[in-house]
Amino acid sequence: MPTTRTVRVDLGSRSYDVRIGTGLLDELAQAVTAVGNVSQIAVISDTTVTRLYGKRVGASLGRTGLKATLIHFPAGEINKTLETVGQIYDRLFSIQPAIDRNTLIVALGGGVPGDVAGFVAATALRGLRWLQAPTTLLADMDSSIGGKTGVDHRAGKNLIGAFCQPQNVLIDVETLRTLPKRDVRSGLAECVKHAFIRDATLLDFIATNAEPIAALDCDVMIELIARNVAIKAAIVTADERESGVRAHLNFGHTIGHGIETFLGYGKTTHGQAVALGMIAACHIAAGKNLIPPSLSERLKEVLELIGLEIRRTGLDSRQIWRIMQHDKKALGGHVKFVLPTALGEVKMFDDVTEHEVITAIESLK
Amino acid sequence: MPTTRTVRVDLGSRSYDVRIGTGLLDELAQAVTAVGNVSQIAVISDTTVTRLYGKRVGASLGRTGLKATLIHFPAGEINKTLETVGQIYDRLFSIQPAIDRNTLIVALGGGVPGDVAGFVAATALRGLRWLQAPTTLLADMDSSIGGKTGVDHRAGKNLIGAFCQPQNVLIDVETLRTLPKRDVRSGLAECVKHAFIRDATLLDFIATNAEPIAALDCDVMIELIARNVAIKAAIVTADERESGVRAHLNFGHTIGHGIETFLGYGKTTHGQAVALGMIAACHIAAGKNLIPPSLSERLKEVLELIGLEIRRTGLDSRQIWRIMQHDKKALGGHVKFVLPTALGEVKMFDDVTEHEVITAIESLK
Repeated sequence: MPTTRTVRVDLGSRSYDVRIGTGLLDELAQAVTAVGNVSQIAVISDTTVTRLYGKRVGASLGRTGLKATLIHFPAGEINKTLETVGQIYDRLFSIQPAIDRNTLIVALGGGVPGDVAGFVAATALRGLRWLQAPTTLLADMDSSIGGKTGVDHRAGKNLIGAFCQPQNVLIDVETLRTLPKRDVRSGLAECVKHAFIRDATLLDFIATNAEPIAALDCDVMIELIARNVAIKAAIVTADERESGVRAHLNFGHTIGHGIETFLGYGKTTHGQAVALGMIAACHIAAGKNLIPPSLSERLKEVLELIGLEIRRTGLDSRQIWRIMQHDKKALGGHVKFVLPTALGEVKMFDDVTEHEVITAIESLK
Repeated sequence: MPTTRTVRVDLGSRSYDVRIGTGLLDELAQAVTAVGNVSQIAVISDTTVTRLYGKRVGASLGRTGLKATLIHFPAGEINKTLETVGQIYDRLFSIQPAIDRNTLIVALGGGVPGDVAGFVAATALRGLRWLQAPTTLLADMDSSIGGKTGVDHRAGKNLIGAFCQPQNVLIDVETLRTLPKRDVRSGLAECVKHAFIRDATLLDFIATNAEPIAALDCDVMIELIARNVAIKAAIVTADERESGVRAHLNFGHTIGHGIETFLGYGKTTHGQAVALGMIAACHIAAGKNLIPPSLSERLKEVLELIGLEIRRTGLDSRQIWRIMQHDKKALGGHVKFVLPTALGEVKMFDDVTEHEVITAIESLK
């Protein structure tokens, strides 16, 4: 059996461990016991993940001897709303015997169940402790690390939420086997992003191991996720409330989000859009002589190796620019561009012009 | 003009000042400037307080030169719901130019607007800074101190919420002049509670100054509120997240809440119910020989002096006991009784019997 890796997220009294290994869903009972002084458990998940892992998680938690209630909501980002949160409160507060402050929330699933369950944990009885058990690559090494919880509002994504760190994160890499391949690739785009902003050697690791990664080899996935969690954890430690370097994580996201919105819900994955956004950002950086053109080429090479597209037809660069202006406005007008200055290094820039952005998007065709 | 008093709520990096004085609503602009780096302001209040003070607060905030938007919702505890919070988000996220992380929330009004606005501040864009400007005696020296924010759920009060400390609290004692007398008396019951749990000399202060208090003399009210804020602040400092001594604040509330629920919404004030609850708790304490019967008499004497009733006909003690059991269940079954052991001193007890409670309620008739 592959060795379990542990990465510490260092946040003073809110510090916690992220464990990455195989069979960890079956070890949830021990994790709950380790939290200590738990009165009962509420698992919050979505319909898809409940169908796949609900029984197994229920059996695992049954070994605690504690009452465990499974609450699920319809899968999909479209359900990441205050209404869903309200329905979960209704279920949560009707549990008998009633929940108390020692009730533990277990967030089971990808980014959406994680964000929703975390927000419920942050706000039920003014804050309950919670465990994260992510089941998608994106959640494993991005959304489950850092305590960002919340839901969308029709005016924008993640406008309602709270920072609330979990007690522990358990990443069972075997759950990736039930993840659609396109979602695996979507997660890999964020791994490439981590390499670009912080760790040059990670890009080579991804390139060298493209095949075992595609085959979801457990040892390689544990190593890959542990390295990515460590990068995310270091950034979160440096900037828990996102007032500084945490913005580096937006590399590829400014244009990427514009592309995602332009293409429309479900027409691409988040990671695929970010991949194109990173290529565009590198195009801008190369144009500014911040990086050599060879680094842009290396990015495309690695993205192709892991199965992501590096071109996209039908992109309307002016329309995407307008969407980006709208996003910027929604964020209070203070958006800076994250551009690479070397492999593993990014800086913030506020002098990126409309012409540079449009040319960069055109280069994706 | 009476001197403004300042009480510090000491919570490390989340510390803040509570200023108590006259004309402070007109000094909101200076308070906003003191917060620093504010991009725009959203005032959250209810219809009643908006009618009374909306214009004045708007004029005061206008002097900041910043955009200030007033968002109000229908007055009343019945509107302290997630639905109201959802409607406030809708308003907040439709402001143009869009709010950003430097937007400041101003909570204007009594306990309900304070709790609702605080919860919105805690959760909009994962947390905005906020100022409290309470306008009721209860909010002045109880709910506005300590960072408890949130809304009710049909399963119970304050089940949804967050701990979120404000940047500052501005208590303008002149706003008490627009408060119904019964609500002033309701707040005074909590002052008596503070005296009983922490400060023997405060009880004499209240008794000696019953007349100027009834006349809302500014100097006396500033002194009274400052002393009460200091007591509440010390308890919050010792136990920010309510895991220990903060429970002492429940003195009089266990039976009091049972009476409040039994009588029904609007049939009594919170403070009047707490006053009866304190009398009942003292009855139990005297029966256990924890305090001399004279202390019970002193309590009743002071409550009468400030215009609160010390008897109530029509109380069904068995029905109130059943309500208390239901409350206890809703709180996870871990409710302890707070009983006085001397004037200014309380302890937690878990050996209070049904018979003692019923006898104590019967004594109120």
